[in-house]
Order: sequence, then structure tokens, then C-alpha cells
Amino acid sequence: MIAIGVLGLGNVGTGFMELLNSGKQTIENRLGTSVSVKKILVRDTGRPRARLAAGIITDRPDDILEDPSISIVVELMGGLEPARTYIRRALSRGKSVVTANKEVVSCYGAELMDLARENGVRFLFEGSVGGGIPIIRPIKECLAANEIHSVTGILNGTTNFILTRMEEDSMELDDALAEAQRLGYAEADPANDITGADVARKIAILATMAFRRGIIPDVVSTTGIDRVTLADMRYAGELGYRVKLLGHVGRRDDGYEAWVAPALVPLSHPLAGVRDSYNAVMVEGNACGTLMFYGRGAGGLPTASAVMGDVMEVIRGGPLPKFSFTSDSSLALLDSRTAVAPFYIRLKAKDEPGVLAAVSGVFGRHGISLSMVLQKNAAGGIAEIVIVTHKTHLGAIHDALIDLTSLSEVPAVDNYLRVWR
Amino acid sequence: MIAIGVLGLGNVGTGFMELLNSGKQTIENRLGTSVSVKKILVRDTGRPRARLAAGIITDRPDDILEDPSISIVVELMGGLEPARTYIRRALSRGKSVVTANKEVVSCYGAELMDLARENGVRFLFEGSVGGGIPIIRPIKECLAANEIHSVTGILNGTTNFILTRMEEDSMELDDALAEAQRLGYAEADPANDITGADVARKIAILATMAFRRGIIPDVVSTTGIDRVTLADMRYAGELGYRVKLLGHVGRRDDGYEAWVAPALVPLSHPLAGVRDSYNAVMVEGNACGTLMFYGRGAGGLPTASAVMGDVMEVIRGGPLPKFSFTSDSSLALLDSRTAVAPFYIRLKAKDEPGVLAAVSGVFGRHGISLSMVLQKNAAGGIAEIVIVTHKTHLGAIHDALIDLTSLSEVPAVDNYLRVWR
Repeated sequence: MIAIGVLGLGNVGTGFMELLNSGKQTIENRLGTSVSVKKILVRDTGRPRARLAAGIITDRPDDILEDPSISIVVELMGGLEPARTYIRRALSRGKSVVTANKEVVSCYGAELMDLARENGVRFLFEGSVGGGIPIIRPIKECLAANEIHSVTGILNGTTNFILTRMEEDSMELDDALAEAQRLGYAEADPANDITGADVARKIAILATMAFRRGIIPDVVSTTGIDRVTLADMRYAGELGYRVKLLGHVGRRDDGYEAWVAPALVPLSHPLAGVRDSYNAVMVEGNACGTLMFYGRGAGGLPTASAVMGDVMEVIRGGPLPKFSFTSDSSLALLDSRTAVAPFYIRLKAKDEPGVLAAVSGVFGRHGISLSMVLQKNAAGGIAEIVIVTHKTHLGAIHDALIDLTSLSEVPAVDNYLRVWR
Repeated sequence: MIAIGVLGLGNVGTGFMELLNSGKQTIENRLGTSVSVKKILVRDTGRPRARLAAGIITDRPDDILEDPSISIVVELMGGLEPARTYIRRALSRGKSVVTANKEVVSCYGAELMDLARENGVRFLFEGSVGGGIPIIRPIKECLAANEIHSVTGILNGTTNFILTRMEEDSMELDDALAEAQRLGYAEADPANDITGADVARKIAILATMAFRRGIIPDVVSTTGIDRVTLADMRYAGELGYRVKLLGHVGRRDDGYEAWVAPALVPLSHPLAGVRDSYNAVMVEGNACGTLMFYGRGAGGLPTASAVMGDVMEVIRGGPLPKFSFTSDSSLALLDSRTAVAPFYIRLKAKDEPGVLAAVSGVFGRHGISLSMVLQKNAAGGIAEIVIVTHKTHLGAIHDALIDLTSLSEVPAVDNYLRVWR
């Protein structure tokens, strides 16, 4: 008989209780032992949700953290504090911890894995990235024989929903965001989604698993989708691309790079087919080749599926993983200016002879060659020019754009975006 | 120090040795133990490949099966016999077995899992389905808390390559097959690929993992891609679909169904984006929702990646899995006539007034309603009619097609294919 303590009864906590209740017999048959939730910590025991779990509800963390009969703590509160403190206390008292908390795992995963090891218990967090998609364990175990080259993903369902609505329904970003909020995909304050901060956390976690050295979200070069306009979407489509918010971490000859940015993905690429609020993670390894894991990246039940899978792993037991993770050395990232990719640039130029030569001259002086140029005549003697470059350094693009803005023939450089190889 | 015996040094065996040699340090660091291949069984020790592994090569199975210092046997011979006998002998002598042999696992997986359990060892086979794609372990472990509703996949790289060439390059099936053979994707005798038999094996294995009761490939209703013509490809495209060879096993209210057949997949569906020799497996569960696992479904190194992941799991050890698999009860499948889907039908009809009414009248009498009708005028007073029905029983389609062929206005019913929901 295994006793579990649950911290938090929000969306994922409720999904976890629902899944445990509906699947109790199957889960217990598969484990050969009985499992029950002894206590659930909530902030307010008077709320309707909490009343549904009457009898096992508490607002005192010690009822779970100090109860020696509880061997597994499932942390589903979210946010850095007090979640981190509770997880530390649980691990220190010899309890295994399962969490779906991307903030805590991305910022303190290394220290918490160390603490779990010191105490001879487990710290598992499949639910912290990609919701119901199995990705942490496949990287850690199934692909354990691989040298991983890169991990690239669509890791935020809200922004992918917004970009899909912009593309398919020609909605402006603000309208698509309002619809996402109406449907419950986006929170009242969508800043973490829109700015890419949420994806940076997930990339930090995936980088740690893939390269076995920690990085924190703050060092991931991060650009959000607020830069993307309907005009970019349409030009991308004309050129054979779709705009997606990508997170990436990869090994290069000279080091590692990690970034989050909206990018043009070729229509034939599997990531281009990921629509609406779905997520997908692409992993490239020396032996496995290119893999992609696709599914619901959020939501109560899908995340609960991942959390329960981890709980079942804790219960199955076995020797503690010899996951050779070194928390004391972190992944040194290359300067983002050294990143190499093709780039998409949209600018306004005077519709006069010689302007295109002046524009391409600037690129030439920075060693950038162009692969596609699209000129559209706009009103008032001003043309819109869309350019896709061959592979070049981000730093060269930055420098070229500064020079372009100083040209009198170029009233505005409207946008530039990375193109995914 | 772990000693491994390898049976077979073909494509996957060579990939396995290559991966172990190039990644030895990483693999041993991750395991905290050293690993080496003590013996490799080959049929002919005089072949060049075998000479490369001189010193550890043997043509006597007993050198591996009767060596008590070898604790893990990796079976990469393929084919039913003698592979099955060797696996049984290894398990009986207390050795864990890792295999990528889809023939053996699909036909004898249940008995071999039982035998492993009786002998307190492991029998793992991630490499037997989907090459380098982690799918067996995610279903068994990550999704262990789910009731799985269905598993649907593109599980044969050769036929997916052929269908992609037919669609994208307007090649006839035979020409695309010849190109697949030239590129090494298809074997000299491609029958197992073309007829769907290879996919039926993989569906049998996936069904066993998803529903924890065995089925053998012979009971899977199987149709190959030889039915698919360029004309079907083009009409599918016009109607918003792409033709893919799908394997499916699913739970319905009244039982289970399992089939392999070419099907029209909507262009917006993630499986439609799986091109060339790639594979993908879609899993639907009550909590995880819709997941898809995508990657290289064959090839020496990708399959070796899966095999080595299993070897590392055996070495990590821990309690034997309490996988509640019942080998004594097999999954009872429903009559394939009861399958429900929309269907695509292509037929020739006289280009006369009243013919379309006669044709649709036949469907009406069988309770089948139509969702799309496309009429193309062909030569000689004969029109080609393409129909997509609403959801109906396969049995009703069969009956309607028999009636249609007896109409004097319908010289030929050329094809019918399932449409994926």
C-alpha cells in the first residue's frame, strides 16, 4: 500500500485525481500494489474543488511533508516558491518527488536531482515539458546510447494556437490571443507565452537531459511571437514556409547554442504540420537519426498522464538511476551572434531604379548572399521587399540591418526572422 | 563487466557493433560499468564483415548460448528459425534477451515473455517496431496509467517511400519500387512490404503492448499497396487527401479491430506529413490524448539505437517488470465487415443521363450516404466517377460494390479504399 501526498489541486491536480480514481484498478493491477492519495495540500480548504476531496484536504504542508507514511510527494502547485522549498523538504525526508513544475525544474532541476541522489530517492518531472508527450524518459533511457546533436520543438500550445489562427483564419495576433483566452488556452496574463519565456524554460530542461549539463532559462536567447505580423505569415506562405515559435538547443563544432524564436519552417518539414495547441519535440542523435514526439503539450489530463507514469516508475522501484548528470558544470553557450541560419527580412524601399542594387549591395558588403527576393509594389512610391538569405551569421544580419536603416532609400526595416533549415 | 553475445552480423548487427565501439565511453559512463561483446554468431566466418570482427566471431551457437559468463544475448538474425529456438535457449539458461526480430516477437512474443518471467530475466524488443523510434517502452511505461483506445501507424518505410514517389513524382508503383530497391530501401523480394504482411506483424506487436493480450499477425485483416494506382493518388489529392499504408488496432464499444490497408488520410492530419521512408505511430489514450512518435523506421544505426537502449535497461537492472500481460487469452477481433469508416470508390460508368442516379441508388439501398461525388469524362462515352461516402460499414460497401458491378451502366468498379477519420 503506497501513500501519496499531493501538493496543489489546480488543473493538473484535478486531472491527476480524476485519472487515479477512474483508472485505479488498472493502475494497481499493473503495479501489483494498491495506491492511494492520503492528503492534498490546498491554499483554501473552503473552495468548491477542495470540498470535493473533503477528508483528505489540508492547508498545512506539514501534514504531507512530515508524515512518514507518505513515500511519494506529487508537486502540482506551479511557481517557484513555496514549491521549491516543499520539494527540498520532501526529498530531504526521504520521499520521492514527482512534479510537473517547469519553473522549478528549469531553475533548480540540477540541485534537486543532486538532493534526490543524496537521499536515495527519485525526482521525476516528465510532466514539466510537453504535457502528455513522453519526452524526458525517452531521451534519458531509450536514447541513452546516442550522442544527441540537437533538440528542437514547438513547446508552447498557446502561441502555436495563435500562429495557426493567424495563418489559417487571417486573424491579427491580438484577436487570435483573445480567442485563445476565450477558449482557456491562454492565461489572463499571457506574457510568459507571448515573450517565449515559457519555451525558454522547457529548452533549459531539455538541454539538461540531452547534454547532461544544466543551463538556466535566463541564458537562452529568447524572442517572442509579438514580432510576427500577418504580413510575415503571408510572405512566408508564398515562399513555401510556415511561421512557428521554435525552441532549440544544439551542439555545434565549437560549443552549444540555445535559443527561442519565431522561425520560418519549410512546409514539408514535420514541425510545419503541428497545428493548433499541439506541441512537438524533434530530437536528432548520432544513431537514432531524426525523431519527433507529438501531442498535447498542456491540459489537466494529458499532464496527469505523464505525472502518473512517473509515480508508477517510482513505485516499480529498482536501483536509482545512474544518470550521469553533472550539476556543478553548466552548459557554456556560444554568443547568439554566431548562430548560423538563413534569414528572412522584410523592409520598405523607395520604388526607384537602383534601390534593389543598393539593398543587395549592403548584404554583399557583409558577406551575405541572397537566395530569394520578392518585390511588391505598395502605395506612395514605396515597395515592400522580402528577402531570404543563404546561411549566414546572425551577427552579420544585425550589422547589415543597421546599415540598411541608414540608407535613405530604405524608410524602414520591418522585420527579420530566422529560417529553419 | 557485462559480457554480451550477439547473434547475427547483418545490417543491424553491424550498426550495433559500430554504435558500441563509437559510443563505448559514453555508454559505460552512463551505466557505471564496462560492457563488451564476447562473441558474435555468424553463418559464415569467412565473409569480409565477419573477418572485421576476427577473434570474437563464431559459427557455433553454443559458444554464446552455453557460455555462463554471457549474461545478455542480442538476437539480430531475423526470421523465425533458428532465432526463436536460440532465444528460448538463452532465456532458459537465465540470460536476458534483446531482439529486433519482428517475426519472432509478433508470432511468439507472448510465450517468450512468459519464459523470461519464469527464468527471472528480461525479454526486450524496442527495435522490432519502428526502428529507432521509442514506442514499445513509452507505451509500456510512460503511458502505463492510460487506457489506450487505439494505435495507428505508418509502419513500413519501403511502402511509404513508394507512395511518396508516386504522389510527388507521378511515378507508377513498379517504377517507384524499382527505385526503392536501387536505393536499398526494398529487398529483392519485396512481397512482405507490398502486401502489408510486414505491417501486420508490427500491428500484432503494438496490439499486444497496448491491450496486454496477444494477437498474431495472421488474424489482422491485411491489404497491401498493390491496389493503389496513380489515378487514386491524383483523385485523393483533388479531394484533400494523401494515400498512406496504415496499420491500426483499436478498441471499440463491442470489441477490438485490427487491420492493415492503404487509406486516404486528410492533408491536415499529422500522419499525412510523414514522407519518404519515415515511420510514425499515433497512440490515442484516455488521458494522454493523441500522441505521435515519428522517425526512421528501419536501418542499421537507428535500429541499433533502440537495441542498445534495451541492453542498457537490462544492465541497469532493478525488479523485473510486473507487466500484466496475459499470454493465455488473446485479443478477440471483430469481423472486419463491421469496421466503420468513410470509403473512397472509383468506378467507370456510361456517360448517359440517369447513370449517376442509378449508381447513387445502389448506395442508398445499402444505407450508405455519399459525401462527395466527382465525375470526370473519359474517352469513348465512359465517365470515371469518384465517390467518398459518409461513415458506413465495410460490409455494406462490399455488398454495394457487388450490386454496382451487376449494373449494365457500370462496366467496372476500379477500386475502393478506406478513408481515415
